[in-house]
Amino acid sequence: MDSLSPDFSRGLLPAIAQDADSGEVLMLAWMNEDAWQRTLASGEAHYFSRSRQKLWHKGETSGHTQTVLAARLDCDRDAILLLVRQKGGAACHTGHASCFFQELKNGEVTECSPVVFDPARVYG
Amino acid sequence: MDSLSPDFSRGLLPAIAQDADSGEVLMLAWMNEDAWQRTLASGEAHYFSRSRQKLWHKGETSGHTQTVLAARLDCDRDAILLLVRQKGGAACHTGHASCFFQELKNGEVTECSPVVFDPARVYG
Repeated sequence: MDSLSPDFSRGLLPAIAQDADSGEVLMLAWMNEDAWQRTLASGEAHYFSRSRQKLWHKGETSGHTQTVLAARLDCDRDAILLLVRQKGGAACHTGHASCFFQELKNGEVTECSPVVFDPARVYG
Repeated sequence: MDSLSPDFSRGLLPAIAQDADSGEVLMLAWMNEDAWQRTLASGEAHYFSRSRQKLWHKGETSGHTQTVLAARLDCDRDAILLLVRQKGGAACHTGHASCFFQELKNGEVTECSPVVFDPARVYG
């Protein structure tokens, strides 16, 4: 095994971004072959935006880019895991550190991830 | 906010299983509403198997069930994160602790997750 080749034959693949230091899962987005190649070439996470139907360099608007330290594939090569350093301390457009900020635990729903920035300031 | 409701209107949602103790991302599978409800009701991870097109109680064959300690949703409620305790120490049918065992880092591809069991023994 000398390279990693995701299997894009069925279309977009889910790509998880995980904080390389804390282990926190920050977000899940989608990749096509182009996004994957640009991620590897640039060292910064690129996704395919399903809502905008185009390549999305994460942080292109907010400045909150993700430096990719490692990329992993699962056994079927149809899911991607990026280990990243998140610039600005927050991955989510809501300002939360993680997009996964709604948690159900012991029968209670709470916010489990802090708000790091004010979206109105970052996105104008 | 008093309950967590994933948005299944577009179909299956990706569900990440993360080790609640180590933070290791173990696998990514898929859920429909039924799988989500059974997961909450039983406290063990249930997915929808795309290859078999049916409900999949993870560990039903191997015994390697996942006890769910918490469930999270992302900002769009279209991705699920489960914090789990993995029975048998391995999530992957290959015997690796994590399905994400193929890693590209510093230009080198290696196996980043140990083999915990022999699949031939577990699946016969």
